Amino acid sequence: MKETMPRPADSAGERIETDALGSRRIDDAHYYGIQTVRAQENFSVSGKTIADIPGFIESVIRIKQAAGLANLAAGGLPGEIAEAIVAAGDHCLHNFEPSQFSVDIYHGGGGTAANMNVNEVLANRANEALTGRKGYDRVHPNTHVNMGQSTNDVIPSAMKLAVHGLLAQLEGTVSILVEALAAKETEFAGVIKLSRTCFQDALPITFGQQLSGYRHGFQRALREMEAMKRKCLNLPLGATAVGTEFGALAGYKAAIYAELSRITGLALEPDENFFDGLQNADQWISISGALKSLALSMAKMCADLRLMSSGPRAGLSEITLPAVQPGSSIMPGKINPVIPEMAIQVYFRVLGNDATVTRACEGELDLNVWESIILNVVTESIILLDRTIPLLVSKCIAGLTANEAICRKAAEGSLALSTAIAAVFDYPNAGSVAHFAAERGLPVKDAAVEMSLLSRQEAEELFEVSLFADPLRYQTVIQKYRLLAQQGALGGSSDGTTGST
Amino acid sequence: MKETMPRPADSAGERIETDALGSRRIDDAHYYGIQTVRAQENFSVSGKTIADIPGFIESVIRIKQAAGLANLAAGGLPGEIAEAIVAAGDHCLHNFEPSQFSVDIYHGGGGTAANMNVNEVLANRANEALTGRKGYDRVHPNTHVNMGQSTNDVIPSAMKLAVHGLLAQLEGTVSILVEALAAKETEFAGVIKLSRTCFQDALPITFGQQLSGYRHGFQRALREMEAMKRKCLNLPLGATAVGTEFGALAGYKAAIYAELSRITGLALEPDENFFDGLQNADQWISISGALKSLALSMAKMCADLRLMSSGPRAGLSEITLPAVQPGSSIMPGKINPVIPEMAIQVYFRVLGNDATVTRACEGELDLNVWESIILNVVTESIILLDRTIPLLVSKCIAGLTANEAICRKAAEGSLALSTAIAAVFDYPNAGSVAHFAAERGLPVKDAAVEMSLLSRQEAEELFEVSLFADPLRYQTVIQKYRLLAQQGALGGSSDGTTGST
Amino acid sequence: MKETMPRPADSAGERIETDALGSRRIDDAHYYGIQTVRAQENFSVSGKTIADIPGFIESVIRIKQAAGLANLAAGGLPGEIAEAIVAAGDHCLHNFEPSQFSVDIYHGGGGTAANMNVNEVLANRANEALTGRKGYDRVHPNTHVNMGQSTNDVIPSAMKLAVHGLLAQLEGTVSILVEALAAKETEFAGVIKLSRTCFQDALPITFGQQLSGYRHGFQRALREMEAMKRKCLNLPLGATAVGTEFGALAGYKAAIYAELSRITGLALEPDENFFDGLQNADQWISISGALKSLALSMAKMCADLRLMSSGPRAGLSEITLPAVQPGSSIMPGKINPVIPEMAIQVYFRVLGNDATVTRACEGELDLNVWESIILNVVTESIILLDRTIPLLVSKCIAGLTANEAICRKAAEGSLALSTAIAAVFDYPNAGSVAHFAAERGLPVKDAAVEMSLLSRQEAEELFEVSLFADPLRYQTVIQKYRLLAQQGALGGSSDGTTGST
Amino acid sequence: MKETMPRPADSAGERIETDALGSRRIDDAHYYGIQTVRAQENFSVSGKTIADIPGFIESVIRIKQAAGLANLAAGGLPGEIAEAIVAAGDHCLHNFEPSQFSVDIYHGGGGTAANMNVNEVLANRANEALTGRKGYDRVHPNTHVNMGQSTNDVIPSAMKLAVHGLLAQLEGTVSILVEALAAKETEFAGVIKLSRTCFQDALPITFGQQLSGYRHGFQRALREMEAMKRKCLNLPLGATAVGTEFGALAGYKAAIYAELSRITGLALEPDENFFDGLQNADQWISISGALKSLALSMAKMCADLRLMSSGPRAGLSEITLPAVQPGSSIMPGKINPVIPEMAIQVYFRVLGNDATVTRACEGELDLNVWESIILNVVTESIILLDRTIPLLVSKCIAGLTANEAICRKAAEGSLALSTAIAAVFDYPNAGSVAHFAAERGLPVKDAAVEMSLLSRQEAEELFEVSLFADPLRYQTVIQKYRLLAQQGALGGSSDGTTGST
Repeated sequence: MKETMPRPADSAGERIETDALGSRRIDDAHYYGIQTVRAQENFSVSGKTIADIPGFIESVIRIKQAAGLANLAAGGLPGEIAEAIVAAGDHCLHNFEPSQFSVDIYHGGGGTAANMNVNEVLANRANEALTGRKGYDRVHPNTHVNMGQSTNDVIPSAMKLAVHGLLAQLEGTVSILVEALAAKETEFAGVIKLSRTCFQDALPITFGQQLSGYRHGFQRALREMEAMKRKCLNLPLGATAVGTEFGALAGYKAAIYAELSRITGLALEPDENFFDGLQNADQWISISGALKSLALSMAKMCADLRLMSSGPRAGLSEITLPAVQPGSSIMPGKINPVIPEMAIQVYFRVLGNDATVTRACEGELDLNVWESIILNVVTESIILLDRTIPLLVSKCIAGLTANEAICRKAAEGSLALSTAIAAVFDYPNAGSVAHFAAERGLPVKDAAVEMSLLSRQEAEELFEVSLFADPLRYQTVIQKYRLLAQQGALGGSSDGTTGST
Repeated sequence: MKETMPRPADSAGERIETDALGSRRIDDAHYYGIQTVRAQENFSVSGKTIADIPGFIESVIRIKQAAGLANLAAGGLPGEIAEAIVAAGDHCLHNFEPSQFSVDIYHGGGGTAANMNVNEVLANRANEALTGRKGYDRVHPNTHVNMGQSTNDVIPSAMKLAVHGLLAQLEGTVSILVEALAAKETEFAGVIKLSRTCFQDALPITFGQQLSGYRHGFQRALREMEAMKRKCLNLPLGATAVGTEFGALAGYKAAIYAELSRITGLALEPDENFFDGLQNADQWISISGALKSLALSMAKMCADLRLMSSGPRAGLSEITLPAVQPGSSIMPGKINPVIPEMAIQVYFRVLGNDATVTRACEGELDLNVWESIILNVVTESIILLDRTIPLLVSKCIAGLTANEAICRKAAEGSLALSTAIAAVFDYPNAGSVAHFAAERGLPVKDAAVEMSLLSRQEAEELFEVSLFADPLRYQTVIQKYRLLAQQGALGGSSDGTTGST
Repeated sequence: MKETMPRPADSAGERIETDALGSRRIDDAHYYGIQTVRAQENFSVSGKTIADIPGFIESVIRIKQAAGLANLAAGGLPGEIAEAIVAAGDHCLHNFEPSQFSVDIYHGGGGTAANMNVNEVLANRANEALTGRKGYDRVHPNTHVNMGQSTNDVIPSAMKLAVHGLLAQLEGTVSILVEALAAKETEFAGVIKLSRTCFQDALPITFGQQLSGYRHGFQRALREMEAMKRKCLNLPLGATAVGTEFGALAGYKAAIYAELSRITGLALEPDENFFDGLQNADQWISISGALKSLALSMAKMCADLRLMSSGPRAGLSEITLPAVQPGSSIMPGKINPVIPEMAIQVYFRVLGNDATVTRACEGELDLNVWESIILNVVTESIILLDRTIPLLVSKCIAGLTANEAICRKAAEGSLALSTAIAAVFDYPNAGSVAHFAAERGLPVKDAAVEMSLLSRQEAEELFEVSLFADPLRYQTVIQKYRLLAQQGALGGSSDGTTGST
Repeated sequence: MKETMPRPADSAGERIETDALGSRRIDDAHYYGIQTVRAQENFSVSGKTIADIPGFIESVIRIKQAAGLANLAAGGLPGEIAEAIVAAGDHCLHNFEPSQFSVDIYHGGGGTAANMNVNEVLANRANEALTGRKGYDRVHPNTHVNMGQSTNDVIPSAMKLAVHGLLAQLEGTVSILVEALAAKETEFAGVIKLSRTCFQDALPITFGQQLSGYRHGFQRALREMEAMKRKCLNLPLGATAVGTEFGALAGYKAAIYAELSRITGLALEPDENFFDGLQNADQWISISGALKSLALSMAKMCADLRLMSSGPRAGLSEITLPAVQPGSSIMPGKINPVIPEMAIQVYFRVLGNDATVTRACEGELDLNVWESIILNVVTESIILLDRTIPLLVSKCIAGLTANEAICRKAAEGSLALSTAIAAVFDYPNAGSVAHFAAERGLPVKDAAVEMSLLSRQEAEELFEVSLFADPLRYQTVIQKYRLLAQQGALGGSSDGTTGST
């Protein structure tokens, strides 16, 4: 069906728009047009629209503005129309009306509806600016606003811009977490506690050391996010429909990258190969994977905090998390680690989102058309993390306290302190000491004395528990005892290499 | 901290509520109380609240009402308070205010905040009914509304009730799909087309037969859903905090099941073993798995529809899907299968949700505390399917048409028709015919004649393509030819069993 | 290419076989033929062959035997050949040579290579029996052994038979686990311990009660497996290539189900709709999901065992698992819960296998061609579970002991015992007691006395910790105290309803 | 239990070894010792052992050798013992006996059994070299071979070395794929075909351009693998049990990195933070994710090849894949794309493996103890890809041919060629042409002429289909026509901007 020239709104305040499938009456208050109306009818399944994705509509509009200027430079658009498109874009951004961008986030066609929604809004607004009325008689959504573009290069490019912005925001949030952990690391540098492997008592460490492990993990996550942001700087923009650049004017490509980089402040570059750029979505596997990894690290730390704060009486009780709400409707006095538990559930969602993204990255032939679900869930993952982490910092990590006495007692009691016997004597002797200590319910230190491996004084020096967490300082002590052991000079006896035989 | 008696709202329109952690001023317009306020502060990460889960708040309220009546029967509550709780529940349901149930769906503690939110709203409303003011001086959220209950038995029970309702709704929707497919099956019962295995030309079937395969798949999904609904009828209600029923009065358990079954119209039963009921969440794996299976069947059919409608000129072009919107911002005249594509993306989400549910079903010790994320994503999956399927029916399946000539031509050209030669002669002869037909670009029928295996007339009978899709009728033909072949009476020759050498 | 009649093996001990693609020399010692040789060359990626799947080759052979007899009954095969096929099958099963079934488990074509491998071995062996030599002059792999069949109905049917057998085996294994848990449940029926929700101290239960929760979960898993076995009794056998039954003789279908049911002892039935049977693989989602659920339940229990046995000194130390090997190469005396850890890793594999199965169940058009990977991973999951559970029983569960004193002490110390105060008085009073106990490091019992809510004697009765785990018995005590509380007769005072103000 | 000095093998050829749990008789032919025997008994679930992981035992041995030399340098071991350990390692590698490294890949304890297996084999061999007999009287598995080490730093380090080697091998394989694609890209540079988006006819491209998209995707995968290899160069070696370096002598850490880098030829570095190194396994998420991404790209290409080669008569039939085996047991002449189908199934496995790895990366507290399952599945993924890709290259890609006439015809018939009308005139005119062409079954070119938009000569120039795939060259043509259109000089009329009304 031939599109006919639009007519002004009638007395009912409606205008008629026409596309290839026919005509529709549209409330003239709306800037969106017929294709958006069709999309509303076709796709209302989730209640979440493209306007609900932070930065996405802005990114599409920025591309449209850059394209307008690039087409002006390439001789494709008269200045008047290019400027009207740019102005329409600015107006939409300064007076953002989500209801004008009403396509459900679940929509087919690789984002055609999203692209056309923006094309229509900008065209109607620009047309109105130039003519006083909506309708496309001066500025047409396809011919002018979409000039030199395709949904297939615009939408993936806008996704990358939007995600770049969200990742930058998340970097800031993760940095706050890193700083909070660094502060607690300093606070707890002197708290000796027991480490556990396989949930079994292992060697002493400081709580600060343990926290430094979390912190380093998040610093690695920051480096990953930096790398993921770089992946967002290569765009398929200019590829048009299938990678051949068909339909873009000479000079357009160079101009649009220059304009868009200027507008966004980002060093944007075309994909090395546009066919690849449209066919393959694997970069979203990387990005989603990095988010999953970050969420998992967060969840792992939260699970540890839950466990270490278990009790208050019959758990590990090594730390206490700030109480943020009563913990039970039936059991008075109970306090639950609800903030870590919220964060852990966010991880579960991000984990599922990664499965969704992976499946959606399996496209086919010349275009991956599943990008709207990728956009939906990748941005959901980022936003959930971005909102969860500050709560985790402010309501849990910042205020957590260590129960130092419990921590130290656990460290001093560990049978794994027998490792010091192994370091000084050998593994079989250490095994005997551990066995003796376990049998009699003794600290390893006392067992070593009772077995005459060490004198009391020697044992006090060798089993000073804080030294176990500072092995570089401790190495000289061990070294000294190794020599003494080789000389048979330990245990208060003149000869006995070991007290056990 | 001891809860103090609440005081009436002050001149600023605020009242003070107190819990174990301290006091908070609350706008007296709100029926929720201090624990809900804390939850709002602790958990605002998703913007989606417990009120956004269809049927969930209703289910919690129904449980509270049944508990009120059961406690009345058990002598735990005076009639006045029990009735006030029931009335408060009815009022909330008839005048549902989502803002009063404002706990973010991501919250820790196994749902304590959700349970307390409802407890507080009902307590304040009941108190107000009895005394003219909010505050808990007559009806206390824990002592009265939550009597004999724990978050740990209420929330999982309410989840099951809510999901039961949503599954029942989804059953209706899937039934519509089954009917729509049945109608098309009849419509296309006579359309001969080519089947494909490994994407390669195989044997003729009717389009109706193919559609019957989809239909049967969805009928199996309906049976699965029926089974899943049954899983929602066993509740841990009465288990209280950890399965021992501690805190429930004698007679309470029998009474609450009677009341709740009456209120909901469902034949509810207590879990066989309450410890199991609280520890293990595996029934959600079953439910989520059944939803994933349904979504996959939907996506599989949609992928087939996309493929069979590929073209319009250079694809399979066997069917045409209704055009619902223009398909490209750059390529005029393109129409995309956007409805199937929307549905496929819904599958991707449901797939990810299943990964989330699986992980969340890994609880620990005496309670799975991840139920709020399970609730969130299971209901999301149901709702997405429930909204997508009707669009799929009305905008795609109902209006799809078959391109009969193309379908028949494809069927007639298939080299796999040589299977009839194998059935009549043997596999090696059939292979020779297929090879001959392929080499010379002939139909198998013509190849068989040219190779003198069959006379022209015999070939016309044996290769009547519609018969291939009706083998029970065809068996007599085959049988006849097998005998003739054994007699060497085919191919117009008096002797030649095969014309090839 | 026309297949030529095979010639006897030459002096080099090789025979020549020919298929549509050409001829190959084959060591005459092998019963497999040219298509198997091609498959060996095409698919050697995993080192795991179809012979490594327990019961799979047997199932294919059983189908071939039943088909031979059914074709005899339907007049398609002479008795001599049918009998030779049956005998060849028996011989292969009694003298199973895995090297003769050498197709890699990763192979394309929906299992054609697997089906042809068996066809070739049986044809050569039957031919040899009838003629003294291999080669297909009397018994042809396609014409005779595969008569009335297609890879597309044989392979999925054989998968179901094989999986049915493995599931039956697994049921036996899970039953052993259920029995082992039941025995420990009895053993520990009197061990009072603390339950934990959100890792926080909750109410007392018995260890037996906790174990009963696991047991019930596994009993539900047994019911699921029973249901899954039923799913394996409906077969697409008779559908032939695409569901139309094309190529099967009249009478064949009824006969093959009768024969195969007789041979296997199973009540086998044709799928209600063969198009569905070939198109849709969703039943494997159900089966894989049930295995995942079982594995998750196992892993959840194992994670609990690890946690409850944490220590030996600075963990929960509620139970002790049998020591099965030293736990550290560096820390003498350490013992790790390695059996549960093995089982947990098995779960991780089964979890991944479910993701694989789900993806593979997305077939396309008229046949799901991914069944060999489904077979591979579903059977792997079953076998891993089937081998792991007995080790878990014999090396962990059977010998685990409870540390009763630690368990009881934890139960007695819990602040959640204040729930009894809530049950007798109200929640605010209980909160005060819990707070008081927490502040002063007292048992709740002592706090209640110090706050004059209860007399010492009353407190001893009300806080007898074993009663908390037996609420039905305890209800009368609570009831009595509720009345006393309402009368203000508790706490040794004549008036005070509560000692706190 | 105190380890006693081992005694020589008795007359039954058995020796007795003792560990903390007791004594065991061991066939003196074995170099492994008591802990390996226990592991065999504890963990035989999969039939796959640590010796089946390519490069893993070698990597552990290399670490043991480097540790021996480092301990020599640090004064911990006498030269004689250090040298005996190095020599034992060399001997094991030169005469690799898998049966000596027999721990099932599913084992708990974070790899203790694997580490001890190697410790025992090296100790017994070194002891034998020094004393003529096995037994640990001179070289002890813990005291000497494991000196300064823990399972917790050795096993993760060995995993990284093994995976580094396998990734390097896979890089070579992927490079072969890239080269093969580059060759085909050149071969098919001139083949014009139709691109498809949403499975619908889109614009012409060359087959070479399409192939270049695949190639670029794999080149990105190569860069990812390079990055993943770098992640394998940072080791936790030196962390000992929990990150504190406890038990390692002064000078050991520097020495072992120097020795191990020398032995392996890799620039190995200690992790920045050893606590992080032991706590967090997220680097395996990255590595597994990169493998999943590679596998998905392979599967996507394979799915495209399947689709483009669909037919041979009733599919797209754009390309023909080499026939590698007959495609059906029932349908003669059928050939299936079995090689791509094998590769796609490999992707399904890798996808599942990624789910397994993700779950296993959720460790707890001070050590992730799930590394053996990570090792198992990550190496399986690499090996499957490494074996599949060469088959894909040699048996599919190298020999694929293009059906040029079919390809060109499809390109010429596409309605999307109307995009050229949009580029020259505007989108509404282009829509009219597409509509006219669709209605009348005309090529777009003819429609444009019939509608008088273009003269025949102009249409021939503007719709020269090969130009659509070379837009930079085409831009001048478009530019010329745009000017003519603006001048109203097209269509053979002196005025008509468009022939349509």
